[in-house]
Amino acid sequence: MITNIDHIGIAVKSLEESIKYYETALGLHCHGQETVESQKVKTAFFAAGEVHIELLEPTSPDSPIAKFLEKNGEGIHHIALATDGIEGQLKKAADAGVRLIHEVPIDGAGDKLVAFLHPKSTHGVLTEFCQAR
Amino acid sequence: MITNIDHIGIAVKSLEESIKYYETALGLHCHGQETVESQKVKTAFFAAGEVHIELLEPTSPDSPIAKFLEKNGEGIHHIALATDGIEGQLKKAADAGVRLIHEVPIDGAGDKLVAFLHPKSTHGVLTEFCQAR
Repeated sequence: MITNIDHIGIAVKSLEESIKYYETALGLHCHGQETVESQKVKTAFFAAGEVHIELLEPTSPDSPIAKFLEKNGEGIHHIALATDGIEGQLKKAADAGVRLIHEVPIDGAGDKLVAFLHPKSTHGVLTEFCQAR
Repeated sequence: MITNIDHIGIAVKSLEESIKYYETALGLHCHGQETVESQKVKTAFFAAGEVHIELLEPTSPDSPIAKFLEKNGEGIHHIALATDGIEGQLKKAADAGVRLIHEVPIDGAGDKLVAFLHPKSTHGVLTEFCQAR
């Protein structure tokens, strides 16, 4: 089952400028940064209650986030739903006709298993399932 | 200060179809529906941990959500950050150069005070502050 929202991923052009906005204008505290080579992004994390806000800056023009920025500009990229059973959650979605980007979970940041659902079959929301190992 | 994420607002064409998706494919439970006349929307709520997912269907072609759908299609519309001091939060944002849609809080759904920040000055995220009365 879905237990909570793990994080909200937001595509930004510059981590430095966006971190400044989140810290100065909202008063949130950046508690970590990490480069995810496989996704060609640099990330920065903020906590808002139990949810993390994850800023994503592309490190290469062929990063998925670079393509998103080109098409949409800065904005919310995905929502990650934490589950206590990612395989069952994927099966439930597939059974309901949802198009899976990952048929089986892959390794994600923070030692998690993750899998994405295609926004064309989720009413426009790029949706991630994630489960702590 | 920001205490948590209160809700994520998602623009949809049809509440009925989207509720079916959230219930069947994700296994979430719709725990309420409400029409907000002032915003010309019908809303449906789901809980995911401490965060509510709020689906928004326009009730009129001149609803802000109808305009959003026309421009962007279905997808995430805004994020609402709960605060324990909305006036101070607005002042902090204004002092940091953020463009406020509401200079002072207005009445929102669920007996809350709410105010929005313009996405052009929040790195692309339509952001709501909200505070329980």
